[in-house]
Amino acid sequence: MERRHFELELEELKQRLLWMAGLAEKAVHEAVQALFEKKEDLARKVLEEETAINDMQLEIDDRVLRLLALQQPMAVDLRFILSASRINNDLERIGDQAVNIAQAALRILRHPQVKPYVDLPRMSALAEGMVRDSLNALVQRDAELARSVLVRDDEVDRLRDQIFRELLTYMMENSAVIFSAFELILVAKNLERIGDHATNIAEDVIYMVAGRDIRHLAPDRR
Amino acid sequence: MERRHFELELEELKQRLLWMAGLAEKAVHEAVQALFEKKEDLARKVLEEETAINDMQLEIDDRVLRLLALQQPMAVDLRFILSASRINNDLERIGDQAVNIAQAALRILRHPQVKPYVDLPRMSALAEGMVRDSLNALVQRDAELARSVLVRDDEVDRLRDQIFRELLTYMMENSAVIFSAFELILVAKNLERIGDHATNIAEDVIYMVAGRDIRHLAPDRR
Repeated sequence: MERRHFELELEELKQRLLWMAGLAEKAVHEAVQALFEKKEDLARKVLEEETAINDMQLEIDDRVLRLLALQQPMAVDLRFILSASRINNDLERIGDQAVNIAQAALRILRHPQVKPYVDLPRMSALAEGMVRDSLNALVQRDAELARSVLVRDDEVDRLRDQIFRELLTYMMENSAVIFSAFELILVAKNLERIGDHATNIAEDVIYMVAGRDIRHLAPDRR
Repeated sequence: MERRHFELELEELKQRLLWMAGLAEKAVHEAVQALFEKKEDLARKVLEEETAINDMQLEIDDRVLRLLALQQPMAVDLRFILSASRINNDLERIGDQAVNIAQAALRILRHPQVKPYVDLPRMSALAEGMVRDSLNALVQRDAELARSVLVRDDEVDRLRDQIFRELLTYMMENSAVIFSAFELILVAKNLERIGDHATNIAEDVIYMVAGRDIRHLAPDRR
């Protein structure tokens, strides 16, 4: 493959990855909206759309393999291709978590609402923003923006702990809500994992842009 | 790099991966034993040993990058190297889950035991076996053994649901145990994720051996 063709293929890989990111982001948004706005149809839509995300994952992996097989890539391209492969994986997992939330929403909507949702929408907005910005950081090759995603993960974990505490208190006060409150706890766990995947993507962007592996570094050394 | 040297490097990559797998398996085993046998020291040991796993992950990723950069690998080698990169990632996450279990154990051991542990040890034995066999399948290039790991993941999920139900029932009967029972639920979630990572590894082994991507296929078509 000549260099120009190779560059086009790299650009195409990036476009597919962004398309996939769009699907994953949409799935998360629809899943949480289904829960918050009590829309069963929207939850079912998320379940139906999972196939498109899975198909895209396989297509992107094929592209990665082809690019690695056909031309001996230079260091910077190699880092991009390997990052793309990992980001692809994280995006598919984000889609999985959206499916988990949609399924939980369908179960939760069968029962009266345990409490008004306050922290859960904040947590989901935060997690969605992290996914969006980790991909923006990829497009703009912006290591600073990627770093801002890492910082927000602590806030997601803080909200998760707060949601856990509040729901466990509800459970203690009224054992009738135990099952419903537990479902909401699982939703918070799913959002936590979405934040974790966005963090992985942000770390990959930093690795790609700065050529520096910051995983397992203390926060002040990132 | 000449072919013979390349083969040696591939073998070395595999050995490092198995070493890392040993560390991850050991961490999981020690973490659950710390909980079941009430050994705080063992839980702390898991926390201390996390660094070794993280260091190994970075070393393996470096090897992957070098192998991809230095020689245009053939299709079969390329599949192995990409699989190694993904398995490396899953092993590190298994180590993370072991750390989560060890931290939970330290919190749980401060309180009286909620109930005798019956399903949790079964679930952890199952998850540990899945990790071990997914790596055995890698060493022996045994797609059948890898498939047996996929089947066991359903059993892990079934045990998780059973543990959830039982602990939620305890919570309903006695609100004093809500916090402790919730910690055990989180341990079951961690074990579930260890099973998921073993499943990912098994899928990678099948991809590597059979050159066939079975992710997202219905169980009867795997």
